[in-house]
Amino acid sequence: MIHAQETERNIISAIYKNALSSYEAYNNLNELCTNAPGRLVGSKESERAIQLLNTQLKKNHPDTVYLQNYTTPSWRCKSTCQAIVKYGLKKDSLHVVNLGLSVSSPDNGIEGEVLEVRTLSALDSLGHRIVKDKIVFFNRAMENSDINTFKAYSGAIDQRGKGASKASEYGAAGVIVRSLATEPDNFPHTGVSQYKDGVRKIPNISISTIDADKLSRINKQNQGVKIRIKSDTETIDAAKTSNIIAEIKGSQHPEKIILIGAHTDAWFNTPGAHDDGAGCEQIIDVFRIFKELNIKPANTIRLVLFMDEEMYQSGSKVYAEFVGKEKKEHIVSIESDAGGLLPLGFGIDAEDSSIESIKKLADQLVNYGIYKTEKGYGGTDIEPLKQFGIPLIGLMTNSQRYFEYHHSANDTFDKVSRREMQLGTAAIASLVYLIDKNGIQ
Amino acid sequence: MIHAQETERNIISAIYKNALSSYEAYNNLNELCTNAPGRLVGSKESERAIQLLNTQLKKNHPDTVYLQNYTTPSWRCKSTCQAIVKYGLKKDSLHVVNLGLSVSSPDNGIEGEVLEVRTLSALDSLGHRIVKDKIVFFNRAMENSDINTFKAYSGAIDQRGKGASKASEYGAAGVIVRSLATEPDNFPHTGVSQYKDGVRKIPNISISTIDADKLSRINKQNQGVKIRIKSDTETIDAAKTSNIIAEIKGSQHPEKIILIGAHTDAWFNTPGAHDDGAGCEQIIDVFRIFKELNIKPANTIRLVLFMDEEMYQSGSKVYAEFVGKEKKEHIVSIESDAGGLLPLGFGIDAEDSSIESIKKLADQLVNYGIYKTEKGYGGTDIEPLKQFGIPLIGLMTNSQRYFEYHHSANDTFDKVSRREMQLGTAAIASLVYLIDKNGIQ
Repeated sequence: MIHAQETERNIISAIYKNALSSYEAYNNLNELCTNAPGRLVGSKESERAIQLLNTQLKKNHPDTVYLQNYTTPSWRCKSTCQAIVKYGLKKDSLHVVNLGLSVSSPDNGIEGEVLEVRTLSALDSLGHRIVKDKIVFFNRAMENSDINTFKAYSGAIDQRGKGASKASEYGAAGVIVRSLATEPDNFPHTGVSQYKDGVRKIPNISISTIDADKLSRINKQNQGVKIRIKSDTETIDAAKTSNIIAEIKGSQHPEKIILIGAHTDAWFNTPGAHDDGAGCEQIIDVFRIFKELNIKPANTIRLVLFMDEEMYQSGSKVYAEFVGKEKKEHIVSIESDAGGLLPLGFGIDAEDSSIESIKKLADQLVNYGIYKTEKGYGGTDIEPLKQFGIPLIGLMTNSQRYFEYHHSANDTFDKVSRREMQLGTAAIASLVYLIDKNGIQ
Repeated sequence: MIHAQETERNIISAIYKNALSSYEAYNNLNELCTNAPGRLVGSKESERAIQLLNTQLKKNHPDTVYLQNYTTPSWRCKSTCQAIVKYGLKKDSLHVVNLGLSVSSPDNGIEGEVLEVRTLSALDSLGHRIVKDKIVFFNRAMENSDINTFKAYSGAIDQRGKGASKASEYGAAGVIVRSLATEPDNFPHTGVSQYKDGVRKIPNISISTIDADKLSRINKQNQGVKIRIKSDTETIDAAKTSNIIAEIKGSQHPEKIILIGAHTDAWFNTPGAHDDGAGCEQIIDVFRIFKELNIKPANTIRLVLFMDEEMYQSGSKVYAEFVGKEKKEHIVSIESDAGGLLPLGFGIDAEDSSIESIKKLADQLVNYGIYKTEKGYGGTDIEPLKQFGIPLIGLMTNSQRYFEYHHSANDTFDKVSRREMQLGTAAIASLVYLIDKNGIQ
């Protein structure tokens, strides 16, 4: 037993040394960000990303690798969205971007008076008479005093997700939402928004935090401030696309699967270096490390690069359906979708006994900075696997910088530290190794 | 007792909320980096930095603030150092910078054949006959596979600190040292170097990691590769300079001191955002937070911004001498000199009982990510206080990115995340608060 523990310690040490010395994943990420930015499902860029990741993956000689093809509705921007604020005799252009799934404006745009609110419920108080024909400006900032930026994000996300539907119910002409970002900057941050069934769909755009403050100031200092919004988007009925699946076959239980995943797609306005290019390259690099260190897992390690996490989660639905039919046991599924930032632990969504069991394994990585493994969130792409009772595990990272980059043109390759990204790679590879060796309860 | 703990928890929570919501320290850092980059002791920039930090500090209304003036020898670059590699009919300019305290070359430079080695002891093997008149090129990289970048730094630092003396003993004409940096880049990183008493002083410069690899390649592929180095520096006998000292007086034990410190100076080639602009601004911000939250410490909180950490540690010596005469009890001294990066814990250099006692207090910050408080290093500026038995505490941060910036032109304001820096501020303020309340063994 002591011998086995020593072996495990040595392998984990070798995994970390290998990961920290390697430039493979980092260079791959540079290639992905350079050649396939804006890889939203159905776009040419997403096709290029699939080809490129597939090629990178094959260099690590997985036992199998194939594309899981399917078709899905999609959406795209046809041209860059514009917003101009008009007050007195002045006009100013604002830093804006379409929110995902937003409809187009008419060709010459929509124009309306600005109505600034901080909450959705404020519209209930104001009512139809005041909201009608207005451009509703949701301007509640993320709560910066919270150490947990994901909590702050959740606390402000209703504006982006549900604001347009609410405003539409009261007759608004359009919606402009303060970017969900922690810092003042001029990058508008996008993200998915939804229209409730049956509501009139109105244009729905995001404004940078600096311009949100500016717009608010202008609106306070002037009467009858108007905004004109031009937005040109379209939905696509059936885009052909793919998940990428690859495996290292288990030497003893090839039918049992340890899944590691990330998502290929990224928003139209960003190279998606942290979200989720880094995740994809980390997962691919786990295969490289297993091969280079000649670690032969007892169970099958399956890699899935899901398409379309950002909009419809179509890739994860297709994969979950496949799992239902395939009827192979998944021991666990692990996702990396919190950026290539310093890893701090794992969030686990599972039965308490499984959490305890996984925590015990992950705690062997505390000397590598993995100190915080606890009940938490797995990941959007693996979420549908919960129906099969599969434990879900998400890599948790230092989230302090994440919302400076998230869903914006600021999510660039140069914001990734190779060593931080590779510590994430090593943490995942080590956990996979430990779970393969020890199983979980 | 339960009530007291709850009060402490609430105050710590308030400290974190205040720090994370504030832009004061971050904007101050921008001001410092913009207006006083390259603030090496004795330079005009260092004088500007002292004035500027003093002004920033006074805005927080400390009970006392004054300059501790002294004179010290100093050193400076008179112009930018140059190195040209010559091979066959080709010439290439290299990215280089003077190492601290290096002597000048003659006006027309020095030229010699390149002798690449990886260790100091290699010169012992090669001997005088081979080393004589050569430009010795120390090209041992930092060990990238180590998770602890400070350990990797220590493992390579002998080349920079002692390489020139060793090479001089064997008659070398000059020395060029691979930058102590974790990643391939074109920023030469400087740092202090020393000549042993009595050796002939030869020019001693640093080359970027990318150009070190290039020079090594050229040297392997060609015969008789030469380098010409031009370096123009001077020593200054007696520069007038100052430490900055400020206090919040203790309400119960004004004669007992909790010291917090950082260093004002930064190398001539860098804005010094992380090293140690961030530290200075964090320490100043601790005063702001205490004042804004109306925390009245029982003991005196003394802030010291030391001059000249980088070269002679003259500021810390002057302060230590002052402490010896002043004979006021220092409960503890805390330094921030590991960059404005995500704080992970505190390193403590003290008796075991004090370490235990401080660790118990710091462990109350685990929910804020301060999970790693252990025996370790305090800081260069507070090191001389050890002679008085004062426990030394150093803020430990995520060091993965640190040696991309350290002592180079890459240590710029935009590399600092406000939230990460402010978590460091809050960690120090909270520890000061807890030590003030509870004392240490």
